[in-house]
Amino acid sequence: MAGALVDVKPTPILKEELDIVIPTIRNLDFLEMWRPFFEPYHLIIVQDGDPSRTIKVPDGFDYELYNRNDINRILGPKASCISFKDSACRCFGYLVSKKKYIFTIDDDCFVAKDPSGKEINALEQHIKNLLNPSTPLFFNTLYDPYREGADFVRGYPFSLREGVPTAVSHGLWLNIPDYDAPTQLAKPLERNTRFVDVVLTIPGGTLFPMCGMNLAFNRELIGPAMYFGLMGIREPIGRYGDMWSGWCVKVICDHLGYGVKTGLPYIWHSKASDPIIAFVNLREEYYGIFWQEELNPFFQSAVRTKACATVQKCYIELSKQVKDELGRIDPYFLKLADAMVTWVGAWDELNVKVCAPVK
Amino acid sequence: MAGALVDVKPTPILKEELDIVIPTIRNLDFLEMWRPFFEPYHLIIVQDGDPSRTIKVPDGFDYELYNRNDINRILGPKASCISFKDSACRCFGYLVSKKKYIFTIDDDCFVAKDPSGKEINALEQHIKNLLNPSTPLFFNTLYDPYREGADFVRGYPFSLREGVPTAVSHGLWLNIPDYDAPTQLAKPLERNTRFVDVVLTIPGGTLFPMCGMNLAFNRELIGPAMYFGLMGIREPIGRYGDMWSGWCVKVICDHLGYGVKTGLPYIWHSKASDPIIAFVNLREEYYGIFWQEELNPFFQSAVRTKACATVQKCYIELSKQVKDELGRIDPYFLKLADAMVTWVGAWDELNVKVCAPVK
Repeated sequence: MAGALVDVKPTPILKEELDIVIPTIRNLDFLEMWRPFFEPYHLIIVQDGDPSRTIKVPDGFDYELYNRNDINRILGPKASCISFKDSACRCFGYLVSKKKYIFTIDDDCFVAKDPSGKEINALEQHIKNLLNPSTPLFFNTLYDPYREGADFVRGYPFSLREGVPTAVSHGLWLNIPDYDAPTQLAKPLERNTRFVDVVLTIPGGTLFPMCGMNLAFNRELIGPAMYFGLMGIREPIGRYGDMWSGWCVKVICDHLGYGVKTGLPYIWHSKASDPIIAFVNLREEYYGIFWQEELNPFFQSAVRTKACATVQKCYIELSKQVKDELGRIDPYFLKLADAMVTWVGAWDELNVKVCAPVK
Repeated sequence: MAGALVDVKPTPILKEELDIVIPTIRNLDFLEMWRPFFEPYHLIIVQDGDPSRTIKVPDGFDYELYNRNDINRILGPKASCISFKDSACRCFGYLVSKKKYIFTIDDDCFVAKDPSGKEINALEQHIKNLLNPSTPLFFNTLYDPYREGADFVRGYPFSLREGVPTAVSHGLWLNIPDYDAPTQLAKPLERNTRFVDVVLTIPGGTLFPMCGMNLAFNRELIGPAMYFGLMGIREPIGRYGDMWSGWCVKVICDHLGYGVKTGLPYIWHSKASDPIIAFVNLREEYYGIFWQEELNPFFQSAVRTKACATVQKCYIELSKQVKDELGRIDPYFLKLADAMVTWVGAWDELNVKVCAPVK
């Protein structure tokens, strides 16, 4: 039985509508495992480290690959806003894509199985999430009301039942959970084995930790805010690009009336539980863990003026607040605020809508 | 493996700590089915209709039963705040209980089974929910971080990981979902068959439709706000007592820093899908459905002044706002606002803390 409203069918999204963005592929098993799901689409691979290393993509995949030299060539001086040696560089892929939807996934994420043993088509579930509306303005206790067999419960205002457009679909991870380094060190053996069969809208006004491992979004609605910041080798901070982006995205979605969903689909996250990795992560995350205490109240109260009617305008406004309010914490935020402006400039440069046909 | 912090064990709560409140029992199979789970506790049955009808409680249960005559005798003129011929009368049971925790359940709710076929001890899960903290200030994507095998994910501020005390545990329903009458009429055959293995905190600032069918709460933390309003035969509205209460409770919990959880445990809701019942429900719910459109923005912006440091003070403040802001919609809200004050008066009268030992 269909959910509330007319159920949006899981139309297979066409190649013309979606790109898959992957930040470096160190492990070619990754592509082989995803072959049946990814082959119909175009891949954008953004290499995060040494540009002289080559990534051999197996036959059959349609892809483009960018290394640091390509990024410098395409963006010129604006390339400074793209991180080096951190998976945050993936956002360059969002910039050069011309598609409506992006699915981004890490190379240590494999195909998961549902409790019946069936392989999960993560891409299909993300598309379903993005095509169905979100309900950020009131919580529905039976979760996603648009899902088959579900609806809005008694007491849910009828005026809110149309929902709002969904901008982001945040998928989860079986096996290795996305813990910070201190938690990894404290619980090296913990595995996520609980398959929770739910998709839900994160309510308006609520922040969440957006993980970039298994993420899809509508580029037309929220693309210019999907900037993963300055992370990695030249910066005091790493492994927080997705978090930074998630907080910016969520406050802008709340302001513009777009929805963010989390839950299904699961992928199988395979990163080995290696205490050395956890120590490296700890060093990279240190400032993230330290600063997030101040970032939370900052984003909770970040002001979007009514004049900000586009993602770009919201983002520029946010960059000013980063400079004014976070700059006092560390000069890093002054640099980051400038990079946010550079990013939006690069976005607008590469995403000019062609109004007249090219001769 | 334990969740974040020290896992609170599902200590069996003692009879001295919990009462089970049931609004009329029309169906004695109900008690037989729950016997193994309810017999260790004390029941408070509040009869919602004709006081001359007698309810035969089977042997073995420890209970007290109140009918309308008892309510009038105990509360005197204040009895006017207790609904007649609507399950909203159940809140009288919250008033006369002397226990810390209340579990309330409808007589058409039976023991559900989990996907493995095991009978679900709803009471035990509610207690677990109430004994573990809530996390209303930031969303954790792996849901309840205190649950076994779970924790806070990367990006969750460490300063918020202790959580806040849980005031309310809202359980769900397999089989017949809690739909309003229009949805019941539109989807008479829809059944909730999805067992979602999750408990989550409803974020601060977000309203939800609180159903009174399968609900537990900490009376000491939030009792005086658990007033189910004026519903039923003498009022223009019915079947909205739990909703009204839920909205009041949620804004006061948000203000005082308490948590509200929803999800597990499930009960099996058996009400027959009868179109005549749906029509009766439609008549009773009409004003609820109509007014809820205005109640949502009202509760979204209801102001709790800093001076309101107790539930009672918050509730009196809220009653003033109901009078001032909702009174213009319908005189019913003027009467309801007065009843809210009467209710708190009755609460304080029946819940005086004895400071000196009685000789």
